[in-house]
Amino acid sequence: MAHQNPTQLETALCMLINVFEKYAKQEGKKDTLTKKEAKTLLEKELPGMKSLYDGDKLLESLDSDGDNEIDFKEFSVFVICLLCCAHNNFFLNEIK
Amino acid sequence: MAHQNPTQLETALCMLINVFEKYAKQEGKKDTLTKKEAKTLLEKELPGMKSLYDGDKLLESLDSDGDNEIDFKEFSVFVICLLCCAHNNFFLNEIK
Repeated sequence: MAHQNPTQLETALCMLINVFEKYAKQEGKKDTLTKKEAKTLLEKELPGMKSLYDGDKLLESLDSDGDNEIDFKEFSVFVICLLCCAHNNFFLNEIK
Repeated sequence: MAHQNPTQLETALCMLINVFEKYAKQEGKKDTLTKKEAKTLLEKELPGMKSLYDGDKLLESLDSDGDNEIDFKEFSVFVICLLCCAHNNFFLNEIK
C-alpha cells in the first residue's frame, strides 16, 4: 500500500485497522482490546445495533482463545460476521 | 445503519460491500464475481500487490465451493486474509 492514491478496498482495510488500534491503545496492551475497550468500540462504532446484542455474551464468543482480550484476529472474525449481515441486508433491500 | 452519521467502522463495511458490488455487477450474476470480474477487482483494487500473487491460483483457492464464481462469503474470507496481512505489516512498522 505504498503507492500514492489508495483504492477503495485499501482505504476500507486501513479504516478497519484504525478502528481497532484506536480502541486497543486506550488501556492495557496496545495490540489487543480489553473487555472494556471492546465494549466502548461496540457502543461508539455500532450505535444502531445496541438493542440487537448482549454485549457480554458477544465479547465472550469473540474471545475464542479465552484470554479475556480480543486480538486482531478475533476482531477480524467479528468484522466478517458484520460484513455478511450488512451485505445480506444491503442485497435484500436492493432486490425488494 | 439507518442513523445519519455513519461511524468509521460502518463506513468501512459499506465501502467493502460497494467494492464487491461494483465488480460483481459487470457481467453474469450481479451478486457473484466471475473469474474475470475477480481478476479485474484484484488488478484495480490491489495494484501494489500484483507481483505478490498468482491471480489464477488465488481465485481457485478463494472459490471454496468450486462453482467458478466468488460469492460474498468467499470474498469476505479474502478480506480477512488481507486485513490480517495489512495489520501485521502496520503493527510491525509501528514497533520498528
